[in-house]
Parts: sequence; structure tokens; C-alpha cells
Amino acid sequence: MLAALEVVRTLNDAGIETDKPIEIVVWTNEEGARFTPAMLGSAAFAGVMPLEQALASRDGQGVSVADALVASGYAGERAIPGTPFDAYFEAHIEQGPILEENGVPIGVVTGGQAICWLDVRVQGQAAHAGTTPMRFRRDAMFTAAEMAASLETLVEMFAPHGLVTIGELGILNASRNTIAADLTFTVDLRHHEDARIAEMESTLRERFADIAERRGLTVQIDQHWGSPATPFDPVCVKAVADAVEALDYRHQRIVSGAGHDAIHIAKHCPTAMIFIPCVNGLSHNEAEDALPEDVTRGADVLLHAMLARAQRAS
Amino acid sequence: MLAALEVVRTLNDAGIETDKPIEIVVWTNEEGARFTPAMLGSAAFAGVMPLEQALASRDGQGVSVADALVASGYAGERAIPGTPFDAYFEAHIEQGPILEENGVPIGVVTGGQAICWLDVRVQGQAAHAGTTPMRFRRDAMFTAAEMAASLETLVEMFAPHGLVTIGELGILNASRNTIAADLTFTVDLRHHEDARIAEMESTLRERFADIAERRGLTVQIDQHWGSPATPFDPVCVKAVADAVEALDYRHQRIVSGAGHDAIHIAKHCPTAMIFIPCVNGLSHNEAEDALPEDVTRGADVLLHAMLARAQRAS
Repeated sequence: MLAALEVVRTLNDAGIETDKPIEIVVWTNEEGARFTPAMLGSAAFAGVMPLEQALASRDGQGVSVADALVASGYAGERAIPGTPFDAYFEAHIEQGPILEENGVPIGVVTGGQAICWLDVRVQGQAAHAGTTPMRFRRDAMFTAAEMAASLETLVEMFAPHGLVTIGELGILNASRNTIAADLTFTVDLRHHEDARIAEMESTLRERFADIAERRGLTVQIDQHWGSPATPFDPVCVKAVADAVEALDYRHQRIVSGAGHDAIHIAKHCPTAMIFIPCVNGLSHNEAEDALPEDVTRGADVLLHAMLARAQRAS
Repeated sequence: MLAALEVVRTLNDAGIETDKPIEIVVWTNEEGARFTPAMLGSAAFAGVMPLEQALASRDGQGVSVADALVASGYAGERAIPGTPFDAYFEAHIEQGPILEENGVPIGVVTGGQAICWLDVRVQGQAAHAGTTPMRFRRDAMFTAAEMAASLETLVEMFAPHGLVTIGELGILNASRNTIAADLTFTVDLRHHEDARIAEMESTLRERFADIAERRGLTVQIDQHWGSPATPFDPVCVKAVADAVEALDYRHQRIVSGAGHDAIHIAKHCPTAMIFIPCVNGLSHNEAEDALPEDVTRGADVLLHAMLARAQRAS
């Protein structure tokens, strides 16, 4: 938002008028810190989420988005989904380590990656940890551990763009001296390409079924949520790339690993993003930081890409 | 307890007097269903746990063992630790599948196995599941999974008597799309021999340290509790073995996988146990069951072992 303000102020300071008007947007609830889900404002604007659903979301104190908008004076009157912009540009820290690792100050973002969230349940047999010989066991914990290990080798087949994370794992009626019988865990799969993430999921399903069958347990795999890859508009992406080249900054093409308002808006109008490095790749962490020179370069690229799109009035 | 009652009634019915008096004991809180720990009564009697500690244990409603004993009329006046018996015999279901698997109706129990309970904490770095390339990750979940897999190969080195169970696992601040940074799990190691369980533990510590170091995470391993192997008294064990042989029942020597009052009492006076099979090896389960013919044989062995020890009055 500060980068957008800098763009408009710079245009004003330089007395530059554009053919197409430039607006700054601050999307409601981008981080999702107060309301669920994150990026609720851009989702409603782009028609990705029904307005009623967005307005009905409540915070931890039971206050709805609708009430909070009235209370804050930000309850607008314009129609939702909103009128499409001619184009939408967003600048952001990468929230990952790739640009920093490569020593590249600007990422030309080509889109958002595909996400597949799975819920896995492994069921074996509870039994006494002291009286049950190893060969009699149907241990859900060791079975899940083998599944996790198989995911690490699976993701190597999809390197470097495949990602896999097991962020949650729970054992029902867990006890230190009881063999785990009923265990659930989550899987977060990501890849740039829809076809490849589908292949990751099907390979996972085959492997998990094989592991469970060999060990005499059952496995159930449910899709919790999924989101296809979101390619950004090639013309907008080219406007960013042209700006970086004109400014002679080192740059690379990059796919966004995280969600952004731009990924919703890309479903609504031509969109692109600009990434700058963040220190140690950290984000959503008190240590999140970006270097002033990188912030400056990012705003500079944003300015030139937007100016090219909005067309300087002659 | 019913087997002990049957022994005494049978001796009475047959008009048999013994040189040494026979007493039946029903130990307080054997299962630990109301108070913690289990086998609290035998622990206090044998001096394994201070009496004050046993009396102070409280149930879920805050009622202490001391109060519950007064309320039930079972608060006794005899000294604790109690006077040693000449010998102690206990009959029990195996609580495991070995006798049933082998088609053997009687287990001559030679002692209790050694137990080593460890608390393991793995610490890596929390990071975004979508923006962090696999090679940058220090993922506590995949690290723990490799540790678990290494335990399965470790226990094969100690087959068939080594046992290993991970009964509890928790991820701090777990979130489906965040790489696990702080994870704890329990390890339950068992073996018949103290030297072998020590070797299991040291091998585990080496392997876990290697895995954590290779992956750039830290691991902390604390001993939560441990119990050495408890051999039963050879003369009492022989009394059981002689009784089985005289009765011509198929039998095998077996080490108890579970805890029993007898394992506390073995520290106090000569002790032995008799096991019978349980259906499908199940115990502490609504489906726990034992066949009437096995129960009969177990009580028969108990009778003859006790009669041999107590000596028929001439």
C-alpha cells in the first residue's frame, strides 16, 4: 500500500497525468488476523466469495464483518462484485528465500501455484506397548511415519517446484504405552502446474494405499480443499518485465508460493505482481524484514509498470 | 482373585491343611482406573512407593486414596511396608498374543521386562508451506518421521524381545500450512534384559542425534521414567514349572510384558506368576476374554504351586 502511495505521489510530484485513472486499493482483512478466511475483501470484490458470506464472517468476539465495517465507517455502497479494473498490480515481499538466495532484487511474478490440501486417517489396532510383539502390531504411528518418509521421496520426483508439508498430526486417545490405533494428519501439496499437482496427489494415494495394505491397516484420504494454479495476465507480466529491464535491475520470473489478493483479482481482471526479497526468507514472523534498497527498487518497478499500462497523457 | 478363592475353597473342600498359612490379597487400585499410578496398593505394601505418597493420590473428583479408604471401610491398621510373605503367587491373563499364537495354555512367568520411557523434542524452523523450497526447510515433522522409521529398523536388531512404541506425538502451534518447528513425541522401549535395553537407548540416541544434525535441527531426549527388568524368584518359578509338568499341561517360559502387582511384590518376597492365554491377545479392551478351560488350568496350576510351597501338613 505504501508502494502504491509512493507511485501516485511520484506521478503527482513529476506532474505526470495518465490516460487511465490510477486507484489505490487497501483490501479488507488481507492477513486474516481478525476474520476468516484471509483475503476476504478481494475475494468478495472479485466474486470468488459471495458478499453475504464475507459480511457474515465473525471475529473472536463475535463481531461480524458487516458490523465492523459500519462501526469503522468503511461500509461502502458500490456493487459487489466490483467493476473490473483495466489492470491490477500488487507489490509484495516474496515471503520465501528464493530471491535472497539468488541475490536477485526483483521477482517478476507469473502467477500463483496450485494447492491441494488432504486429510489422511490411518486406522490400525490399539494394543499394549508391553505385551504385543512387534510382528503382531498394526501401529498407526509407524505407518504414518512411513507415509511421511514416502512423501519426502515423492516430492523429489517433482523438484524443484513440488512442495509437501505435514503441518498437523493427531493420535486419538493417545497414551505413551498404547500402540496408536487411530491417527489423522494433514498434507499440503503445492506445484506450479495443475497437471503435476494432480500427479503428486495420485502418486501419494497409490503409495499410502500400498503402505497401509502391506501393514494391515486402513487409510482414508479426503480432499479438504484445493485451488488450481492461477496464471497472471501475460500482458501485465510483460509490463513488469519491461519495467525491470528498462531500470536494469537483476530479476527472475517466480511463481508466488503464498496466497495474495492479486490471486483473487486475477480471476476478475488482468493482474500481475512484483516481489522483493525478505530477510532470511521470513514472513508472518516478528523478524520479518526487507532492505530499504529492495523496497525502493520494488516501488520503482511498480511505478514504471503502472505508468506503461495507464499510458502517459500526451 | 477368583483363582485364589478357588484354590482356598478347593483345599477346604478336600480337607487339606498346610504348614504355612495361605492368604488371599486384593491389591488396591491395581488397574489405576481411579487413582494414579496403577498398582498403587502393592507398591505401598512393598515399600516401592512411600505410603504418604500413595495415600495422597487423588481421583478425578479430588478424593484422596486416604479418604476413599476411610469411606469404604478398608483403611487398615497394619504397618507398611508389610511383613514379607514366605512367597507370593499371582495368576493372570497374558494380556498379549504369544500363548494363544503358540497354542500353549500355561505361561510360566520368569519375570517382568525392563522399561525405558523417553521424551523426545525436535526443534526446527517454522516457515510457510507455500513459499519455502524443500531444500531450505528444517521440518520437525519429516525429521520425527525419519526418527520413527529408524526405530523400526533398530528394534529389528533386538528381535524378538525388543519392543518400541511411539504412543504420543504433538506439534506445537500446529497449522496445516506451516512447517512444523517444535514437535514432541514419546518413546516406550522394552526388553527382557537391562543390558539390551540400555543398548537400545544408546543406539536410539546416536541415531536421533545423527538424523537431527544431518537435517540441521536440534533434538533433546529426556528419560521420563525407567524400570529395570524384574526376575522372579527361581524357586517360586520352579514351583510353578513343576506344577505344570505334574499336571501335564503344555507350557512355555514367558516374560511379562505388562506391569503387575507381582512385579512390585517381587522386590519384597519370593514371587512367581502364572499366565493363561487371552482371546486374540486383547486386554484393557471391551473384547477382553479368556476361555473357561484355560482359566481352569491356570487355577489348577496355582493350586499345585501354592500347595507345594505351603507344604501339606502331615
